[in-house]
Order: sequence, then C-alpha cells, then structure tokens
Amino acid sequence: MSVAWERLIRFEAEDGRILRGEPILPSPDFDLGTTTEATKLQAKVIRGDDLYDTTGRTTVTDETVTVKTLLGPLAAADVPILRCVGLNYAKHIREAGRKPPPFPFIFFKPSTCVADHGAAIVVPRIAQDDQADYEGELCLVLGRDAKDVARDDALAYVAAYTAGNDVSSRKLQRDPALAGGVPQWGFSKGFDTFAPLGPCLVRADLVGDPKALQLSTLVNGERRQHESVNDLLFDCAYLISHLSSGTTLQAGSVIMTGTPGGVGSGQSPPQWLKPGDTVEVKISKIGTLRNGVEYA
Amino acid sequence: MSVAWERLIRFEAEDGRILRGEPILPSPDFDLGTTTEATKLQAKVIRGDDLYDTTGRTTVTDETVTVKTLLGPLAAADVPILRCVGLNYAKHIREAGRKPPPFPFIFFKPSTCVADHGAAIVVPRIAQDDQADYEGELCLVLGRDAKDVARDDALAYVAAYTAGNDVSSRKLQRDPALAGGVPQWGFSKGFDTFAPLGPCLVRADLVGDPKALQLSTLVNGERRQHESVNDLLFDCAYLISHLSSGTTLQAGSVIMTGTPGGVGSGQSPPQWLKPGDTVEVKISKIGTLRNGVEYA
Repeated sequence: MSVAWERLIRFEAEDGRILRGEPILPSPDFDLGTTTEATKLQAKVIRGDDLYDTTGRTTVTDETVTVKTLLGPLAAADVPILRCVGLNYAKHIREAGRKPPPFPFIFFKPSTCVADHGAAIVVPRIAQDDQADYEGELCLVLGRDAKDVARDDALAYVAAYTAGNDVSSRKLQRDPALAGGVPQWGFSKGFDTFAPLGPCLVRADLVGDPKALQLSTLVNGERRQHESVNDLLFDCAYLISHLSSGTTLQAGSVIMTGTPGGVGSGQSPPQWLKPGDTVEVKISKIGTLRNGVEYA
Repeated sequence: MSVAWERLIRFEAEDGRILRGEPILPSPDFDLGTTTEATKLQAKVIRGDDLYDTTGRTTVTDETVTVKTLLGPLAAADVPILRCVGLNYAKHIREAGRKPPPFPFIFFKPSTCVADHGAAIVVPRIAQDDQADYEGELCLVLGRDAKDVARDDALAYVAAYTAGNDVSSRKLQRDPALAGGVPQWGFSKGFDTFAPLGPCLVRADLVGDPKALQLSTLVNGERRQHESVNDLLFDCAYLISHLSSGTTLQAGSVIMTGTPGGVGSGQSPPQWLKPGDTVEVKISKIGTLRNGVEYA
C-alpha cells in the first residue's frame, strides 16, 4: 500500500492555519513552486501525524482550503537527519580531473538546516566573506526505517522525492588552513536554513524512474546547473543500500543525492551568493524550489 | 533553576520496567559503571518527559526501586544529534606532527549511533577488516536550545556531562582510495551502536570545571588513553560558542569534545577492536562507560 497523498504541500491557509494538503493542480503540468497568493491554489487538507502512513490512519480529507503562502513540505521536526553525498555526478567528477571513487563520499546535515520553500537562506556572519554557494540536488524521503537493505529492494523504501539546495560555505569547507587540513563537510554546510526543501513531496510512483529526471539551478534567473539525474555515479538505489550498511535510516530521513557541475565556486570568476539573490532548483515532475538570500 | 536530578540513570528495574532514576549512591565515590545485579543499586524514579526541565514538571519522586540492569542514560530518541570534534587534544596534535588549527574540526554522528552502557558495539560487515577503533571522550549535554552563544555564557547551556566512545572505522575514514581522496568523518563513524554514552548523566554543577576532569580508556583492562581534559585545545565553552554560530543547537544535543592520544590506530602495531573485547571509558566524577564488541 502507498501513502495517502500524491503530492504533499505545507502552507499557510487564507485563514492563517499552517496545514498540509494535497494540492488540486490548476493544470496537469503546474509547477507548485510558482504558487503565489494570486494563484488561489486549492488543496485538500491532510490529517494524520505520520506523513508516510500506509495503513489508512493518515488521510486526504474532503476539506478544501485556499493556499495563501506555500511553505516547504517538511518542517525540521519531520526530518531525523539529512544524509548527503558529495562528488556524485560523473561529468562533474571528470571535469574536476578526479577519478570516480569506489564509495560515495557521505556527510550529514542536521535537521535544523531545513528551510521552507520561499524562505530566505540566512548566511551567518562566520560565512559571509565570499564563500556562500548553492548546490541543486534531487532529494529522496524514506517512508520507513531501512537497515542493511539490498540494492534491488532499496527504492521500495522511498516514499517521495523533492528538490533541495545543499547550501555550502566554501572557505569553511575547503580552506586547508582552517581545521588542521581536513575538509569540513559538516560544519560548513550545517547552518540553520542551509537545506531548503520543496516545493512539494511527489509520491515515488508518480516520479517513476528517478534517472529520467532533469535538474537545473538558476541564480537570479541565470541557469548555472543543468544535468540529467541519469549522470549520477551512485544512483538512488545504491545510495540507500550503501547508507543503510549497519545503519538505521529512520523513516522521514532525507537523502540528498549530490550536485552536478556549475556551482558558484566553479564559475570563472567564482560567483558567491549575496544578499538579494534568488536561487531556484528546478526538477522535472517535482517543480521549482525558490529561496532568497540574506546575511544574518 | 537547575534540572531536577543530580545524577540521571536509565535502567531495567527488578520488575522489568525501563525507568529513569536518581541513583542512591552506596558510597560517595561509587562508580555507577561498576553496577551489577548483585549491587542491588537503589534509585528514586524520575517522572517527566523533559529530562532537562527546570520548571518543576519533571521530578525525582519518592518511589524507590532496585536496578537490575543499568542502561545508558540517553536513548536515541532523546538525542537530536551528536556534534563531534576531531583533533582537539593539544599533545595528541603535536604527537601527530600537526599544527593546532584555528578552528576545530567538526563532524556529526546521527542519533541512531547512541548505544547503552553495557551493550555491545556491533561492527557492521563493511568495517570488520582491521579498522574498528575506540575514542574515549568527555561529552556534554545541552539543557536548552543554543544559537549564537557567547563563550562567556556558553557553559550555562550545559545541563550535564557524561562519558562517550566515538567508535570509528579507520579505513573508511582515512583510506584516500575510498571516496575520492576525501576523509570520511561521517559515514565511518555513523553506524548503529557507534556512540555508547554513560554510565550516567552528572549535573553540570556537580562536575564544576570540566578542565579538572581526567579521562582514561582501557581495552581489556589495558590502559590506552590517559589525559587531563585541561589539555583540550578548544574547551567546552569555546565549542558551544563556535558550534552555535548561525546554528540552533537543540536541547538534548550531545557534544563529543574529542579524544586524546592512544587510540588503537596509534599503537605500534595498531590494535583494532575485535569480537570479545571490552572497552572502558573512565572519567573522574562521571564513572566508567563499559561496552563489549561484536561483529554483526
């Protein structure tokens, strides 16, 4: 059995309530990330504590409400942790003159990084000196606990997909002088608001084969990243299997699958995120995750 | 106001219930980590959902029970995340021929790593080839959310201290061939059971200045690590302040402060953890955290 909804959004309704709902798409290919108050998007309210329930306890009700402001589909409290992969797009690895590694490079973002669609990425003082960067990524959300899962069974644990931005601080991440010559993949990517997710969750069966998805990232409307998910060196099934080695991946955990070429640090000259910028991560079948940028 | 308890233990009582309690020490310097069923340790049951409550809702009751089996003070669900520091004992850094870095090296362990005092460290198949290692560490537990905290205010956020073992897989961590030449400080230390904590929480005011603590790690009774916490390059107050930069450190979060010299990989020849081993992390004023080792 599957989860109760096809697409899940979280939003402020016209009456001020923060709700989750199944959006009623104005057109079959409507990009939920383009929703504004003027859209008057309608949604059927979802009731139930467990978003990934498949037993009928969580339901899409007949109560229809109007969306005033779209938020991200997941609040920090919904996400145990974000497990992330570096160096996973094959062309990007070859571009960088690296050899494909035998294992993916894994790091974690705390759930406190989760930010809403439409919210600002707030760069803290420690990371404001020409180093804030974006990484558009396909994200998958696990519907149930997974441990020691075989690759062939792995995609059955995916409840839904969404788009994410693995916001990064390049100096804190890479400067060899900073932390004993060891790259900082935790601290530098772990600040509050450094993991925007959205605009919605899309149930796994509606996405079908994730390799068929296309990912783009735009900064102030300029396309910086554009790649097929088919270029992933370690695909979604492999990542779940590998990450679950001796490890309980809790239901609700998010896996960020890595970013293709075209990040700000790879531009010539480098293009860092600055206050007033808008970053959009657009993935086919999912929609556009849009976030502004502020300095704390 | 302070938390309701002086020392907090979690245990199976003689009647089979899993409880939290304030232990009634048989002697003032009793090491709770040496508790066995024969000790007949008595504890007053603690009632309340929020372990770090300071409003009087969580209380030490008059119900006295007998401890059958001591567990760890914290279950995985009590800990949002573990924030950890590498390369933090000054002598250990000098021994390794490194220069003290200007910032601490930070990485994260998921809460699913938390293991009970007395439970086995279970080494998964992927890490069984001569690489499992121990790291005895002083751990602090935050009693309330902390963000952008000044160093002078930082220790006021510490509810309690405990001992921890940052179990590590050295090949997965360090082998440059494995993940694109990037050290793996997340995956290699993130397996289930790789963060034993215990034997108890000790309220911060009972510990006083953490720099006065002594830490030792023993494997099968042989002392491998022995150092004063005063040798920490980045002390507890600095770590909280630094980690809270632009980052919400949630109440209940554990900070593992780093390990001194004497880990297994630093022995000559290296001494890896193997099935049947017993690892003890002993910290003055806190007691001895003891764990066996198994292969999955």
